[in-house]
Amino acid sequence: TFTRGLQTVTLIPGDGIGPEISSAVMKIFDAAKAPIQWEEKNVTAIKGPGGRWMIPPEAKESMDRSKIGLKGPLKTPIAAGHPSMNLLLRKTFDLYANVRPCVSIEGYKTPYTDVDLVTIRENTEGEYSGIEHLIVDGVVQSIKLITENASRRIAEYAFEYARNNQRASVTAVHKANIMRMSDGLFLRQCREVAEKYKDVKFTEMYLDTVCLNMVQDPTNFDVLVMPNLYGDILSDLCAGLIGGLGVTPSGNIGANGVAIFESVHGTAPDIAGLDLANPTALLLSAVMMLRHMGQHPLAKRIETACFDTIRDKKVLTKDLGGNSKCSEFTNEICRRVQDLE
Amino acid sequence: TFTRGLQTVTLIPGDGIGPEISSAVMKIFDAAKAPIQWEEKNVTAIKGPGGRWMIPPEAKESMDRSKIGLKGPLKTPIAAGHPSMNLLLRKTFDLYANVRPCVSIEGYKTPYTDVDLVTIRENTEGEYSGIEHLIVDGVVQSIKLITENASRRIAEYAFEYARNNQRASVTAVHKANIMRMSDGLFLRQCREVAEKYKDVKFTEMYLDTVCLNMVQDPTNFDVLVMPNLYGDILSDLCAGLIGGLGVTPSGNIGANGVAIFESVHGTAPDIAGLDLANPTALLLSAVMMLRHMGQHPLAKRIETACFDTIRDKKVLTKDLGGNSKCSEFTNEICRRVQDLE
Ligand SMILES: CC(C)[C@H](C(=O)O)[C@@H](O)C(=O)O
Ligand SMILES: CC(C)[C@H](C(=O)O)[C@@H](O)C(=O)O
Repeated sequence: TFTRGLQTVTLIPGDGIGPEISSAVMKIFDAAKAPIQWEEKNVTAIKGPGGRWMIPPEAKESMDRSKIGLKGPLKTPIAAGHPSMNLLLRKTFDLYANVRPCVSIEGYKTPYTDVDLVTIRENTEGEYSGIEHLIVDGVVQSIKLITENASRRIAEYAFEYARNNQRASVTAVHKANIMRMSDGLFLRQCREVAEKYKDVKFTEMYLDTVCLNMVQDPTNFDVLVMPNLYGDILSDLCAGLIGGLGVTPSGNIGANGVAIFESVHGTAPDIAGLDLANPTALLLSAVMMLRHMGQHPLAKRIETACFDTIRDKKVLTKDLGGNSKCSEFTNEICRRVQDLE
Repeated sequence: TFTRGLQTVTLIPGDGIGPEISSAVMKIFDAAKAPIQWEEKNVTAIKGPGGRWMIPPEAKESMDRSKIGLKGPLKTPIAAGHPSMNLLLRKTFDLYANVRPCVSIEGYKTPYTDVDLVTIRENTEGEYSGIEHLIVDGVVQSIKLITENASRRIAEYAFEYARNNQRASVTAVHKANIMRMSDGLFLRQCREVAEKYKDVKFTEMYLDTVCLNMVQDPTNFDVLVMPNLYGDILSDLCAGLIGGLGVTPSGNIGANGVAIFESVHGTAPDIAGLDLANPTALLLSAVMMLRHMGQHPLAKRIETACFDTIRDKKVLTKDLGGNSKCSEFTNEICRRVQDLE
């Protein structure tokens, strides 16, 4: 027999339904004999020296070592005046790229079929700079900060992603007709990077036009790259096209090789602990994580088991239109994962 | 017989298919015996004293007198370094509210049915301030400017609109979790104004959540009010839900009682002059205009004739799925307008 080394993944179960869906994912990974060792950590911010909110050092160290995290939903913000945990994690690990593949799930009814696109969102600057001023009474300004470095970095990530994932085109989404300098700078970086990737088609589109065309026919889109706020909007819009946050995976890619994969839905406190939660979004995020780790066949197997279960419609959680428990849905996926081996 | 006075409307036919669809609307209004006198003007910007781009004085004066305009699509920007005609018109007449009723059209197939909502967009400030700076090489900032006055004015417009149009609720769309001061100021104005309209339900939602929920089930929305850029995005998204810009009317309400109604689609130069254009968006904008002028029964009659024609599917332009000419489609609506009298 052949023994593979185990790779450590920092697991952040999160709050509400987080622990249940994390257990479900671990169970499915066990059934698939995934060569992964989970290191469970709590990231809920604590007050550090100088009174600044920070991730507990233990969790930070685990991530720095493992370089890879899987995260359930977090109750956030945890206190008044406190930044959201999402923002804190992005900052702590310089998670500059938020990646969301949105692929229609066969058997799960939505107004659209055959959606197959990826949104890539710049995750560190833009409208999220946090710089705001009161100019005079009743007049406020917020600053949108766009830098050449961050724009180039995300553009390069998008083109690399397209190339490595057999995607034909990258579309830069912008409003450079209005924000000529800031979105103009972003767009220029995309154009320059595009020059280096002659094998990937490059197009540019206005954000409003993208939204309009997206709801009319999403099948025309492939990889989309954009500044922070536009990504916030479009990634949620696209998640809606395929059935919502309950089935949409998400990955955050950082500098220094760190990456965190997460379900972006809420903690659903009303059903927490009742064995009713749907683990699909976290599971598909974990599948993205496997691909990021180079575990392609294993990723495919787990993904297939999940999609087959949904298409089959026999064992589904309530939100997916069935009346099975989380554990039953999980067991069904485990069974299929083993059958597929 | 009863002779009503004629009301003057400044007609800006526009470019490309603009003149054809404007003629179509005038023909239908004639058939309906609408008590309107058209004053045709060209608004294409000219260089004024000091080299600033401006609307030709004749057109400006006509609008100032008539207080009401109907506008086809314009080729814009007309020269490098020139602002878009849309922006120039908004500025010239302080058109602070962009209003877009998005209502599903029976018989015109889209992924959604029963959409019936209105987006109300602040049209003068926010991300459209035009203030941008190069901080150092490779670092740019754009300024989003939010004022108490403009926020209050649009909030008041939204609640008045809801009340006058038998709408049950107003939702303020924002990202005050990120832009706490600017979107916070906007939101505070909405809350304060809501206090004065106890008959209209008030809710608040994040822009990303609105986008997600909108594509999942648009029927949950009613009147939506929001800052400039969010309105740019959402109004196009919602137009997409009901079939695109070819069937979506739009109105711009200004200070000093001025208002301009317009189709927001392009000039379609490829089919200009070929009697192939679809006048629906401009016609429905003209219907909005009639309502704005208090001509409710007339508005209803023309709208019904248009919707009946579309539902009937016998005489439709190409983009609507038929193979009739613009003139045939127009004549069919004229016939029905007369029958309905
Ligand atoms: C919770 C909030 C800070 C966050 C954002 O606006 O980025 C969320 O919407 C997201 O997309 O992760
Ligand atoms: C053409 C452009 C300046 C404009 C905008 O961004 O406001 C357009 O998209 C609109 O919605 O009228």
